[in-house]
Amino acid sequence: MTRYKLVLEYDGRDFVGWQRQDNGPSVQAALESAVEGFCGERAAVAGAGRTDSGVHALGQVAHVDIQKPTTGDQVRDALNFHLKPQAIAVLSATPVAEDFHARFSANRRCYLYRIVNRRAPLALDRGRAWFVPVALDEAAMDAAAQVLVGKHDFSSFRAAECQAKSPVKTLDRLTVARRGEEITVEAQARSFLHHQVRNMVGTLKLVGEGKWTAEQVADALTRRDRRAAGPTAPAEGLYLVSVGYP
Amino acid sequence: MTRYKLVLEYDGRDFVGWQRQDNGPSVQAALESAVEGFCGERAAVAGAGRTDSGVHALGQVAHVDIQKPTTGDQVRDALNFHLKPQAIAVLSATPVAEDFHARFSANRRCYLYRIVNRRAPLALDRGRAWFVPVALDEAAMDAAAQVLVGKHDFSSFRAAECQAKSPVKTLDRLTVARRGEEITVEAQARSFLHHQVRNMVGTLKLVGEGKWTAEQVADALTRRDRRAAGPTAPAEGLYLVSVGYP
Repeated sequence: MTRYKLVLEYDGRDFVGWQRQDNGPSVQAALESAVEGFCGERAAVAGAGRTDSGVHALGQVAHVDIQKPTTGDQVRDALNFHLKPQAIAVLSATPVAEDFHARFSANRRCYLYRIVNRRAPLALDRGRAWFVPVALDEAAMDAAAQVLVGKHDFSSFRAAECQAKSPVKTLDRLTVARRGEEITVEAQARSFLHHQVRNMVGTLKLVGEGKWTAEQVADALTRRDRRAAGPTAPAEGLYLVSVGYP
Repeated sequence: MTRYKLVLEYDGRDFVGWQRQDNGPSVQAALESAVEGFCGERAAVAGAGRTDSGVHALGQVAHVDIQKPTTGDQVRDALNFHLKPQAIAVLSATPVAEDFHARFSANRRCYLYRIVNRRAPLALDRGRAWFVPVALDEAAMDAAAQVLVGKHDFSSFRAAECQAKSPVKTLDRLTVARRGEEITVEAQARSFLHHQVRNMVGTLKLVGEGKWTAEQVADALTRRDRRAAGPTAPAEGLYLVSVGYP
């Protein structure tokens, strides 16, 4: 038996999310079917993060145990063959130690949130970014984002259904930058609460519109109440960029 | 009557191409329907370039004459409203002189061709780039591209159905560059022959693979015979980026 670390790209629009569910196709189920198609083995595929429906991945990480003697390159090519025509690509497959766990070994997760800030609706980036027609002040958003960096109780930015044991997380980085009509938010932490990035982006958008100040974001954080922060930004702008390991 | 210059973004996959045709939805017909929906006028929309089916636009230019008194911003917003849910966006609408012609006044066209050069198939960029799994040498491609720059008879890179009067064109710029796993080809000229960019990219790909040399590209050019050059690169990697006017 060899454990393989998989790095994955997928288009979140086509799936109910990472996790296997009864109500539609999941990335996890698609990968498990591809593994069975390749080697006839029914193996569980464990992912580093449970992305929601509509959330994309540029570098999700998963692991799977395969009995059949093979190589990383063969695993990558065979899974890509069996995944067709689904919008999931195995970018790499690498043999790892048997105690490697995609989720529990991870110590860094990086997300990107894309906002297209212009008057015209999206043609090429539809479903790949949040379309915001009202002018946003990215400098004000970036300043307010710094209020959230550090170790805090993020209850105000946590989905009701979040299963994390504690609402306390350390946000290592949250930056907002503009390039032309696109505003990108980059977030990095050891781990995030459910909807934390989308709830932070939805709140920062209020700052960008001039409706909220950085002080109000700080106040929302200290209230530890989901109702104190802004709305949840749509899934379609969110990308799991990379997962880091020690 | 006021003539408006429209700058357009669209996803080429959804259309049979720019030009109105009997066999499916065209960008031109969609725009003419939107104009009629907005002001009840049946006006012809003229485009700067006739993009083929599958070819995308980031900055196609068109013009249309509207009798109804209105403003550029109103034209942009109304056309975007009436274009829904089609993947066409009017980025701007500007009043121009009555002798402005999107096609005949244009003196510069810029195209981008995207190649994703990696082993894994495309998930997020499917239909938006050419997937080439064999390793390409972008420096060799760029060197060979310079052979094509300048004023030449481009018959070897011209589609059989091309309607241009002369096969002689002046290619102002053709550059190949890599950023990670993506190779981009940028082409600029006053105008291009039908399929010229895709035929040049298909030929440069042979150079990137090491199958052809720059000398063979030069030889293909002097032969003035379509059979002398390489195959046509797929439409899905091509973007009309911008159209310039004096």
